[in-house]
Order: sequence, then structure tokens, then C-alpha cells
Amino acid sequence: MKITEIKELFDLNESGDAKIDEFSESITVGGWIRSIRDSKTFGFISISDGTCFKTLQIVYDDTLPNFKDISKLNVGAAIIVSGRLVLTPGAKQPFEIQADEVMVEGNSTSDYPLQKKRHSFEYLRTIPHLRARTNTFQATFRVRSLIAYAIHKFFQERGFVYVHTPIITGSDCEGAGEMFQVTTLNVDELLKGNNKSAEDVEKELSYEDDFFEKKTSLTVSGQLDGETYAQAFKKIYTFGPTFRAENSNTTRHAAEFWMIEPEISYADLEDDMELAEDMIKYIIEYVLDNAKDEMEFFNSFVDKGLLERLNHVKDSDFGRVTYTEAIDILKEHNDEFTYKVSWGCDLQTEHERYLTETVFKKPIFVTDYPKDIKAFYMKLNDDEKTVAAMDCLVPGIGEIIGGSQREDDYDKLIKRMKELGLDENEYKFYLDLRKYGSTRHAGFGLGFERCVMYLTGMSNIRDVIPYPRTVGSLV
Amino acid sequence: MKITEIKELFDLNESGDAKIDEFSESITVGGWIRSIRDSKTFGFISISDGTCFKTLQIVYDDTLPNFKDISKLNVGAAIIVSGRLVLTPGAKQPFEIQADEVMVEGNSTSDYPLQKKRHSFEYLRTIPHLRARTNTFQATFRVRSLIAYAIHKFFQERGFVYVHTPIITGSDCEGAGEMFQVTTLNVDELLKGNNKSAEDVEKELSYEDDFFEKKTSLTVSGQLDGETYAQAFKKIYTFGPTFRAENSNTTRHAAEFWMIEPEISYADLEDDMELAEDMIKYIIEYVLDNAKDEMEFFNSFVDKGLLERLNHVKDSDFGRVTYTEAIDILKEHNDEFTYKVSWGCDLQTEHERYLTETVFKKPIFVTDYPKDIKAFYMKLNDDEKTVAAMDCLVPGIGEIIGGSQREDDYDKLIKRMKELGLDENEYKFYLDLRKYGSTRHAGFGLGFERCVMYLTGMSNIRDVIPYPRTVGSLV
Repeated sequence: MKITEIKELFDLNESGDAKIDEFSESITVGGWIRSIRDSKTFGFISISDGTCFKTLQIVYDDTLPNFKDISKLNVGAAIIVSGRLVLTPGAKQPFEIQADEVMVEGNSTSDYPLQKKRHSFEYLRTIPHLRARTNTFQATFRVRSLIAYAIHKFFQERGFVYVHTPIITGSDCEGAGEMFQVTTLNVDELLKGNNKSAEDVEKELSYEDDFFEKKTSLTVSGQLDGETYAQAFKKIYTFGPTFRAENSNTTRHAAEFWMIEPEISYADLEDDMELAEDMIKYIIEYVLDNAKDEMEFFNSFVDKGLLERLNHVKDSDFGRVTYTEAIDILKEHNDEFTYKVSWGCDLQTEHERYLTETVFKKPIFVTDYPKDIKAFYMKLNDDEKTVAAMDCLVPGIGEIIGGSQREDDYDKLIKRMKELGLDENEYKFYLDLRKYGSTRHAGFGLGFERCVMYLTGMSNIRDVIPYPRTVGSLV
Repeated sequence: MKITEIKELFDLNESGDAKIDEFSESITVGGWIRSIRDSKTFGFISISDGTCFKTLQIVYDDTLPNFKDISKLNVGAAIIVSGRLVLTPGAKQPFEIQADEVMVEGNSTSDYPLQKKRHSFEYLRTIPHLRARTNTFQATFRVRSLIAYAIHKFFQERGFVYVHTPIITGSDCEGAGEMFQVTTLNVDELLKGNNKSAEDVEKELSYEDDFFEKKTSLTVSGQLDGETYAQAFKKIYTFGPTFRAENSNTTRHAAEFWMIEPEISYADLEDDMELAEDMIKYIIEYVLDNAKDEMEFFNSFVDKGLLERLNHVKDSDFGRVTYTEAIDILKEHNDEFTYKVSWGCDLQTEHERYLTETVFKKPIFVTDYPKDIKAFYMKLNDDEKTVAAMDCLVPGIGEIIGGSQREDDYDKLIKRMKELGLDENEYKFYLDLRKYGSTRHAGFGLGFERCVMYLTGMSNIRDVIPYPRTVGSLV
């Protein structure tokens, strides 16, 4: 049985070359019932098959032998319909199917949690296995998928090598946040106070007995490993899950999220910013081209002004301002901020948004931050006070990307590590890169969920992850 | 400074339209020294910049002011060279650069571990941060990247939605293997026998105190969650890391590896096999088209016969045989096997390879396995003894893909779960799919590293993962 996809029908219809007449004989479609209503002799069913945002209208009548059974179907039921496609000029939908046969693939019980009414996002979070069947989450998770692909496409077309940096790590030196421990030690027994191995009740357990014979954690960043591959392939990117065991119960923090971390050799901070700008524009363009219905939905029902904002970003030349200049600008408006700024402080979201929305009115890169508020691996500028860092700020949310040129000088890197009390032995692999053919190089990190929120206008990170993991919550 | 990539030069040269003359003025290239040799008045340097498999020859002579310093450079050093591109008909390489200037971007110390000689894979595993600079690992990890992209491209072009199923899971019901525990409990203290929280030394710790307020693990498969999204989007795929805490120290097992798990609704086992066959052929074709040099290298130096085998797979119609038929065939050759077969046994690699290499001489799907050797969720056939499972076997390695149609009947699924003593409450979300618009559906799993090994001929899983994690070993 050949099942025609709803997307195929709409694509043909929109292509305008009347190929849709090819279907004038009889076609078969399958989908899940979004709504159903009937009168005495006929009825309408709206189905979604998940291949596109649009639904398809089915018309059925009492010439069908199972007319009464069809009318009793519940929302959520899966059906397969054979019939003729009929153009409906002037109607809301461009065409519909007049059913010759309606087969029930799987009925739905009357307690189906997604009735045809508006459900709150909070409620939908309690049924993550079903919420992708609603308009909002169909749109969100299709766009999430398209963004992921756009990112791969962007980097692969430019010859970048995709690197899977490890998830389980033996170092606690990635330095970007609190870590989850990974273990095969019997924690159940340890909680009972029983620190003995089963094989030998006399023997006390230690990390020697753990799977990797040492203490291990979930990665918080692939950057340092990514750099090792950039010194072999020139241009690489990572795209994988990262983890933070932080007790932050906000709309923007998840314990498990995906990150993209490109790294480029023979490249400086300017090359890094160009790459970031090109990437953001490419993603926006790809999504606008490939998810028109979804983006219009978000613009109408989730975040009015979204399309205008994204188009503006796509068409702007991103601005540049140093941290020092930015502080000078912001200081003049300190009375408008909750947190007052002065040179040396970290920028808060209120400052970032003020710069990009009110001052520059477009995306900007803020560069050359004080070394003391940035990571040890960032390249020290000649002033010895600032580092070659950049944050990309966009209207609507503030920071979306953070990156830097990396310190490529062995002696300067060692000096900075010592100042910060870092253990050289933990970073031997990283220091090797500065001994064996060191190059100027740079990279940045893009939080994938932050990017999905930005492109969809969805405001809670729990609503852009299929099964979100946040503190105290794992559905 | 515009740095031209070596790939660009070779692409232009191979395009045959003499555009390479555009570079007759002066160009700048950058790369890492693979070899260097000099005589009194001139020298040759071979550099790689990681953008392609080929190296570029630099010729320099004593008209350069730093001639002597150049000659002292070590293998591994990073240089930037400006000069003229000169075609060298008849020579091993099609062109070379005659240097007007050689700048040292970063020297390499004489203890550089990758001298110009053959290193064993075992040795290279001890320097995972450097091994990608060798021919074999350049080829392996570029092909790994290309395979990953081919997989995304294949599914996205067909309208599949990419789903990030969760890495941290609260269920231990995925059933595919031993799991790693994920925790923020203070294991260091627990090992000391100190089961008290720091805040309140009187209070004993429990999973209530863990990050998610319950016991959590690393996922072993995204399939069950993937199915929930296939019932919303019709066609989905996952591509993410999975974990097995199994004490298997073999050349084919890693504790951390990536899996691709597509799932299709309104689809049966036949549709599933067609999808798998199309995908494998697509990946092979993509890699052969986009990594010619690398694949020829593997064919010459790693696995003679590789290209012939892959081309054969690409051009074959995959065969079909039921498990029962396969057992009948194999039984006749039981004297050739270490493990003798009989109906009901699981197939070993020796049996799988015999079927695909000796009997069918092409890739095959073995279908309809005994239910007792397959997972609970596979669809029961009418004979009530077998399930609608399929394994795809390919010459050279045996099983590369395993999949099945899923049990979509609520009552049959519950019955099977009870037979196997599974806890219904743990699977409520999964059972819901059979209550609310259940559809026939199917899917499969492809172990990504297994796929990379198959396409490169690399025989140890440790050599196709940038930073492999295996039992007792985490570099």
C-alpha cells in the first residue's frame, strides 16, 4: 500500500504547475486525527501525518459502510484514508480528500490527553511523549531538527571536520561548571554504608574498582579536545551533548544540553567573528527557507515580531565594540540598570541587551574582555590586561555565542595557569599543542538550545528539548 | 593575510580547466611539516594543512635570508609560506610551491612523537591528541566526519526529523545492557563510609539528595523515546552517544559509542529493510565520492579489497532469508563451525559471515527470529514463535544493523511484558503509544563506529574514536 505524504500534496499544490491533477484517480493517506465533526449524513476529519505543519481535511459521508464507526472515532486515532483529492478554491484549505474508504489503523481512547483545546506548556511538559503532536511542539521540534542540520551543512560545506569529543571524561579541568560523576561503583550499597566489594567482603572499594579505574565525569565542554583536532585538520567542529550539574532552576538552564564548538587554526579573533556571523546568518536563512509555516506560526502565536527580528539579523553587518568602549557607553546609563557597571565587571543580560537593542540596534561582537573574568586559555592581548575574547550579542536575548582566540604561546599559557593554580599535569596534552607546531587559532561555543529558543521565540528551555533534564526533574 | 588551502589547489588542478594559473602571481599557504630535507643550497618541505589527504611540496633555497633556520625546522612545525605555484609535469606531485618567504608560525621540539616513520597503532593510541596528524588517522577521522554527515543528509533529504533523545535516563528499562550511573552524590565521602550530608551530619544521604532526586544512568538506546516522536512526525532518527558498562575488552566494544536509530510509522518490516538498504548504499556512495584519496589509502595500506567489497555492496540487491531458512542452510555445515546451530540459538559472527560471504555472496537481511532471543517490543508474528525482526549482514563483518517492526497491539505488548516480568509502570509512556492512535511502525539501530570500521577497514574500534573509552582505559 503506497501512502502519500501530506507534505507531498502541499508541495505539489504550491509548485503551481497543476501536477496535483496526477492524483485525480485515487490516493491513500495516513495520519492522526486532530479534529472530527459530523452531521447526520457526512463529516469532516482533520488529520496530521507529521510530515509538515499543515493538516489535511477528509470529507466522508454515509455511503461508507462504516460511517457510524468513523463518526465515533476519538481525537488522536490513527487512520488510513483512500479517496479522491479535490481542489477547493475559496475554502480555507486549498484541497481536501473525499473519502472512498476510511480504515482505522489504531483508535484512541476517550482519555486522550490532547483534546482539541489549548493546553498550557506546563501541562504539556508532564506528557513529553505526546506533546510533539500539538502545533507548538510540532513546529518547535521540526525547527530544532532543521537547525541541527543547517549547522552540519554550514560546516561541512566549508570543509570542517566533525569531531565527536568524548562524553565521559577523566579530567575535572574543563573548568566550565559543576560536573556529574559517572560510575559503576555500587552506590546503592555505599549509601547503606557498605563499602565492601561483593567478591571479597574484606576488600574496601576505591576508584580502582570503578569502570575506568579512576574517577570520571560527564563533559562540560569539548573545546580542549576539539583544539587537538584543529591542529590536525585546520577546521573542525563538535556537536554533542554537554552537562552541568548546576542548581539553577531558571527558564534558560538545563543540566543536559547540546553544544556546537568550532575551532579554526591559522586564524585569529577576526576570523572567528566572521565565522560566527556567517554561521548565524546561514542558520536563520536555512530555517526561514525550510520551515515557512512553522516560522509564521511562531511569529503569530508565540513571539510577535520574531520574523522581523530574524530578518534584521540576517541582513545586518554585525557591529564591533571593545569591552572597554562598551563599559564607557553603559556607564552613562548606569541609572537604568539594576547592576551598575564599571571596568572589570562581567556584563549582565540587561547590559548586553541594552547594547545590542538600544545602542547598536543590531547584533554586535563585544571583544577584548578583562582577563580576570575570562578563561585561562584565552590569548593575552599586548596590554596584558585584556584577552582576545568575543561575545556575540543579538537583539532579543543578549549573548548567543562566546569565543576567543586561544593562547598559543607555551610560556604565556604556563604562566597564566600558574597564576590560577591549575595543575600542569592535567593539561599535558593541551600544552603539547603549544610545543609541536603551535598555530594562532580561535573558536567559539554556541549553546544549541539557546539557538533554538532564539529562532523559535520559545522562552523556556524545557520546551525546546524533547525530554528536558533540569535540577530535581527528569520525566 | 589570505591563506589558500591545499585542498583548493588540488581541486583546481583536478578540475582540469587550468584555473590554477590564477595562482601564478603569488600565494600563501600554511601547514604542518610532515618531512623536510635539505642540501647545501636548497631544500624540500612536505606540508599538510589538514584540509585534504594530500601534502604539498615546498621548495626553498639559499636566496632566502632565513635559509639556515628553515633547514633546522623539525617535523611537526607549523609554517606559513608565500611563493609561486609551479606545475611539475612528470613529477610525483602535480605542482609545488617555490618559496619566496617561509615564516615560522610555531616550531616543534625535537622530541615530537610523530617522526617520519611508521608508528604502531598501539603506540599512537597513547597520544590521541596527536595521532590525527598521521596519514591513517587523518583518513579515518575525515571519513568518520563524512559518514556522519552522509547519515544526516540521507535522513534530512527524506524529511526525517532528527531527535535528540536524552542521555541521562531515569529508567533502567532500556534493557540493552549494563548501565553507568550518573550522580552528584559525594562518592568520595561514601567510599570513606561517610553517609552523611555536609549540611546536616545527622542526615543520611539517599537518592532524594541526588541531582534529579532519583537514581539516574547513561542511556543505552534512544529507541523507546524515539518511538514516541515517530508517532508525531511519522519519520524520525536519533544520532547520539550511547553507553554500555560492559566488561568486554575486545576490538569491537567501546563503553561510549554513537548510535543512529531511525523509526518510521505507517511502516512494516519490509519498509524498514528498504530504508536500511538505501541508507547503507547512500553512505558508501557519499564516502566514495567525497573521500577518494582516503579510500584509496585504506584500500592500499589498511584493508586490501575494501573498495571492491564496498562497490559490490553498493551495487547489490540485498538478499532476504528467514531465520528458519538460514538455520536449515547452516545446519548442513555445522561441522565447519565452532558453535553448532539449531533452531532457537542466536547466530554468531561465524554464522553470519558464512551466510553473507559464502552462501549469498552479498548483503542479506535475516528476518523473523525466535521471539525468545529478541527484545520484548518486537512484533509477534502469526506463528506466535517468531518476531518481525531483521538483522542486516554484510560481507567482511557480519551484522551491521539490527531492527524490527514494533509490537503495536496494546494487549499483545502487555502480555509479552508480563511473560518477561517487566514492570508496566516503568513503561507507561510506551504503552500510551498503543492506546492513542497506534500505528504499525518499525525501526533499526546502526552502531556508528561499527559503520566507520566497515567503511575504512580499520579493525579496532579504538582507532575510529578520537578519544576511545573502554573498560579500564580512558586516556
